[in-house]
Formats: sequence, C-alpha cells, structure tokens
Amino acid sequence: MNILVTGAAGFLGRRLIEALLQRGTLTDRQGLSQNITRIVAFDVVPLAGIDDPRVQVVCGDIAEAKVLESLVDARTDSIFHLAAVVSSQAEQDFELGMRINFSATHNLLERIRSLDTCPKWVMTSSVAVFGGKLPAQVEDDQVWAPQSSYGTQKAMNDLLLADYSRRGFVDGRSLRMPTIVVRPGKPNLAASSFASGIIREPLNGQHSVCPVPLDTRLWLMSPAQAISNLIHGHELAAEQLTQGRVINMPGLSVTVQQMIDALRQTAGDQVASRIAVLPDPAIVRIVGSWPGSFAARYAKDLGFTADHDFADVIGQFMAQYPAHAT
Amino acid sequence: MNILVTGAAGFLGRRLIEALLQRGTLTDRQGLSQNITRIVAFDVVPLAGIDDPRVQVVCGDIAEAKVLESLVDARTDSIFHLAAVVSSQAEQDFELGMRINFSATHNLLERIRSLDTCPKWVMTSSVAVFGGKLPAQVEDDQVWAPQSSYGTQKAMNDLLLADYSRRGFVDGRSLRMPTIVVRPGKPNLAASSFASGIIREPLNGQHSVCPVPLDTRLWLMSPAQAISNLIHGHELAAEQLTQGRVINMPGLSVTVQQMIDALRQTAGDQVASRIAVLPDPAIVRIVGSWPGSFAARYAKDLGFTADHDFADVIGQFMAQYPAHAT
Repeated sequence: MNILVTGAAGFLGRRLIEALLQRGTLTDRQGLSQNITRIVAFDVVPLAGIDDPRVQVVCGDIAEAKVLESLVDARTDSIFHLAAVVSSQAEQDFELGMRINFSATHNLLERIRSLDTCPKWVMTSSVAVFGGKLPAQVEDDQVWAPQSSYGTQKAMNDLLLADYSRRGFVDGRSLRMPTIVVRPGKPNLAASSFASGIIREPLNGQHSVCPVPLDTRLWLMSPAQAISNLIHGHELAAEQLTQGRVINMPGLSVTVQQMIDALRQTAGDQVASRIAVLPDPAIVRIVGSWPGSFAARYAKDLGFTADHDFADVIGQFMAQYPAHAT
Repeated sequence: MNILVTGAAGFLGRRLIEALLQRGTLTDRQGLSQNITRIVAFDVVPLAGIDDPRVQVVCGDIAEAKVLESLVDARTDSIFHLAAVVSSQAEQDFELGMRINFSATHNLLERIRSLDTCPKWVMTSSVAVFGGKLPAQVEDDQVWAPQSSYGTQKAMNDLLLADYSRRGFVDGRSLRMPTIVVRPGKPNLAASSFASGIIREPLNGQHSVCPVPLDTRLWLMSPAQAISNLIHGHELAAEQLTQGRVINMPGLSVTVQQMIDALRQTAGDQVASRIAVLPDPAIVRIVGSWPGSFAARYAKDLGFTADHDFADVIGQFMAQYPAHAT
C-alpha cells in the first residue's frame, strides 16, 4: 500500500503515521489486507523524528496544483487528508482559509479524478459545520449551518467528497470530528484551543485562561480515539457506507465545569485552581455555535467508538506525557 | 439602481427583467425605494426582444474572471444570479457543471468581495440539495444530502453565499426553488423537464412521455410566483433574515397523477390522453431523490408565497400562451 498523509507534521498526522507504521497493514479497496510499503508524509513544514524507511517526508504548499501532481500518482492507494488551517485562523484570514481548507481539497480531488484510479480517502471534517438553532442532541439528519468560515469550508469539502465518491472518482469517507483533547504542545489558533489548554497548562504548573463560560458544553474525543477512528474509517468497505460518506463521530459530551472537576479529581485541587475563567466574545461566539452532543447513530452502527469518560482522557494524557504530571 | 441579471436569456431571467422594468423601482440596502436606471442582462446567448433603454445586453462566459470584472463594478447595487447548467446536463458533464454552477458563482462572489461594496444578491438554489432518507414533509432543519452533482453544486453555492454574507462581503439571499412549471418552449436537459412537458405538449396537440411513475410527488411553483418571490427576496431587509440566507421556498405538493387530473379537468379528456407513462431509470433516480413537500416555515414567516392550486397554474399558462389552448 502506498499512502499519502497530508498535514503529516501536525499533531494528528504524526500520531496517525506512527500508528500506521506500527500496524504495518491496511485493507485495500478489494478488501484485502496489504503491507504498508510507503507513506508520503506531506506538510508545509517537515515531519521530523520518525525514522522509518517506509516514510518519505515531502514539504510544500498543498494549494499548488504542481505540488499535488508530484504527491499523488496512479500508485497511490490511500489518502489521509488532514491538512487544514484551524478555525480562528480561517476566521481571521479568509483567503488563507479558502485556499488551504477548500481549494487544496478541491485540487487534490481533481488530481485524483484525472488519474481515474479511485483511491480510498479519509478526511477530517468538523462539528463546526453545525450552528444556529440546535436540539440538545444533534441527530444525523440535522441541517448544516456553519457560523464560521472554517465550518463553511469543511462543509463544502464534505459535499464535494460525497459527490466525487458517488461518481466513482474517489472512495471517500469524511469523519466529523469532535474537538480533540488533550493536545500536547502549545496553544494554537483553533477557537477550541483552550479545551486542551485548561488541562495541559495546569498539569504543567502554568496558569490557563478559559475563554468560555463554565456551562459551555463541548463534544470531545481523545487523540488515541481519533487515530483509532481514522483507521477504522479507512478499513470500512464502501458497501457499508449506506447512509453516505460524511459521518458524525461519536464523542464525549461534557461541560467545561465537568472537565475542570475531572482535572481536580485526577490531579488535585492545586492543579485545578490554576484555571481562570475570562470569557472572550470572539471565542464564545464560535465555540458556542457548535453542538455539545450528537446521537452519531450512523457512526455507531459502523463501529466507530468514543472515549469512556473525561477522567480517562486526562489519564491518557498524563500517562503519555508524564513530564506534565506535577 | 444598477442591476445585474445573470442567465438573463433564460426563461426566468427574461421574465424577471420584464417584471423589473414594469415595476420600475427596487429597495436599496438602506431601505429606500430607488428607480431602476440600468439592468445588465448577461447570458451566454444574447437576450433578444426586450427593447428598453435601461437594458444593456451583454454576452460571455460567466466562468471567466475577466468577464466578471466587466460585469460588476462599484456601481452595481443588486445582482440576480440565475445562470446555471440544469440538472441532467450537470450530471452528464461533470466539468461543465462544476465550472458554471459552482466556479462561476465563486468567482462572482470573489469579484464582489474585491470591490468592498456589499451589494444585494438574490440567487436560485434548488430542492436537489436534498436526498436520502426524507420525511413526508421536509422541515427547514433537514440535512442537505444531494444525490446529483447539480444538487451538490447548488448546496456549495448556498454555503459560500451564507459565509460571504455573514462576513459582510455581500448581502445575499438564496431561494431554494421548487420545480418551476409550466415552462414555455421546448424540453431541456433538466431532469424535471417533463413536469412542464406533460402539460405543455398535450395542450399543444402533441404527445408527451412522462418518465416517472404517476405517484411521484413533486414540489412546484408557477413562473409568475417564482418571479414574485425573487423580487420579494430582494426587497427584504437584511435584519429580517434571522434564520440565515438560504430559504426553502413554499410551493405546491402534487403527484404526477394529480397534475394529469388537473389537466383533464382544465383542458378535457382528449388533451390529457396525450400523456404516456414510460419510466426512465436515470430520471426516476434523480427526481425520486427530491422531496415532494416542504414546511417552508421560515419562508412563510418572511412573506414568500405559493400558488393556490395546480389547476390555477395550468390556467395561468393557458392565459399567457393562448396558442397552446387546443
């Protein structure tokens, strides 16, 4: 199997590549298990620190058609398309968001269409496609009403992927991901960056500002769960996708208060006291427009899974990054 | 008021221009009634037969950025964007559909964004954005699940228009139109072309083939009603659009059998006997994926209206094109 991973140097990209290398195989379009022989790890910055002869690190601008020609050819069996500009960044820089989040996806699909090989394709979509008046629990037939340019671009990708798949140009699967927590490293320009920050920074002995009210309900998934679901999405046969190519993922529905309570329970009062709540209207507007809970019936029928509880998610993070556990 | 109409030589475009000329005024973004001083009537073929000094006929390829630059400038107050490749044609020619239905809309919005003048914009979307498992009556919060490239392209336009409007680049309104009947003239490559054909051809003394089963339920609007709703959509103030820029229109829900019964009642047995039912799987697949009834609550709240009954719709057509009344 020849695999392309875009956004390879990102947090999920790196973990996905590690998981694929460890796994060693993937199921091809004929339903046969095949050895992974090559992973093209593409990003705007080089993926560093993975030393494996199967991995070929490539850098470039994903929105350039010439770059895509060199990345994908008739031997490409599967694509994990994770490259994206995050939500607040796409809101601040409209052109950048359209270029990276939408046009690059469109160009990549066009490159694939020109090859006529119909590879498998797994991409990450987002709960940000939803907004407006929402029920307490969102069903799979809920209309999309993005309240951000990021959500708009992800919804357009979902529509394109569904049509390219229906026409047999690609064998696509788009996973509507919850907010992924706890991310290691530094805060980023995702509107949801705080959801990792309020766990990670206090564990690291630092103060953290929570920019949304404590009763804000979030829809969450741990990194390990996200990787497991991305691979599961790849492994499904096309025939199983009876209700379409765009799948709302299961997740954990928790309020910020419950997240802080779980942190207190897991790491103690001193750690939990390092969080200050200071609402930021721009963040409240974007995050507040996202649903806090999904039924995810189609995804559950297909075997996608959620984390057990939020204390587990914190435990996973502390086990993986023990330096944080102060 | 300086107005651009794309798809001006089409059936709706021509009638819209006639209605605007007769009306003489439109409401500008400040809520003031203004005289219509110029209508740029753009299409790939020239609009003929309208002789009015306010109308400037322009021809060209709407997907070319250079063409759009000459069509829209800082003086453009309002745009009625009707240009499109119809459903079966977009299904047969994927590239043409993407180019005219999606890229042209995107380019036109980009041209407007570059001017920073935020004109009013009214465009026609379609019930073809819906599909899959559907309730008997579709509510405004029904998920979009297009089963055709045409529906996909229209849904992508709706998403773009909503985001460009939210960001203040344009003051957009997208009207999800029912199938418009009875169209005069010849059959076209719309999958729904038969819905006019089974009325128009029998009235004209010709036989007509109905390519879907008699119990197929359609969602319909007369041409006069469509023009009235397009103008109503323009006249609404932005502040009224509290539930978004994409509005499912009211309509008439009738089965093909009921359409034929109304024809028999209006024009007699001999006329109605000129229809033969011969299902075409390609048409059945596309038309069968469209909903046959909508609640259209948001539209009704905003004052959009539907035809009274289908016999009325036939009566309108016979009155306007008396040559057909055999």
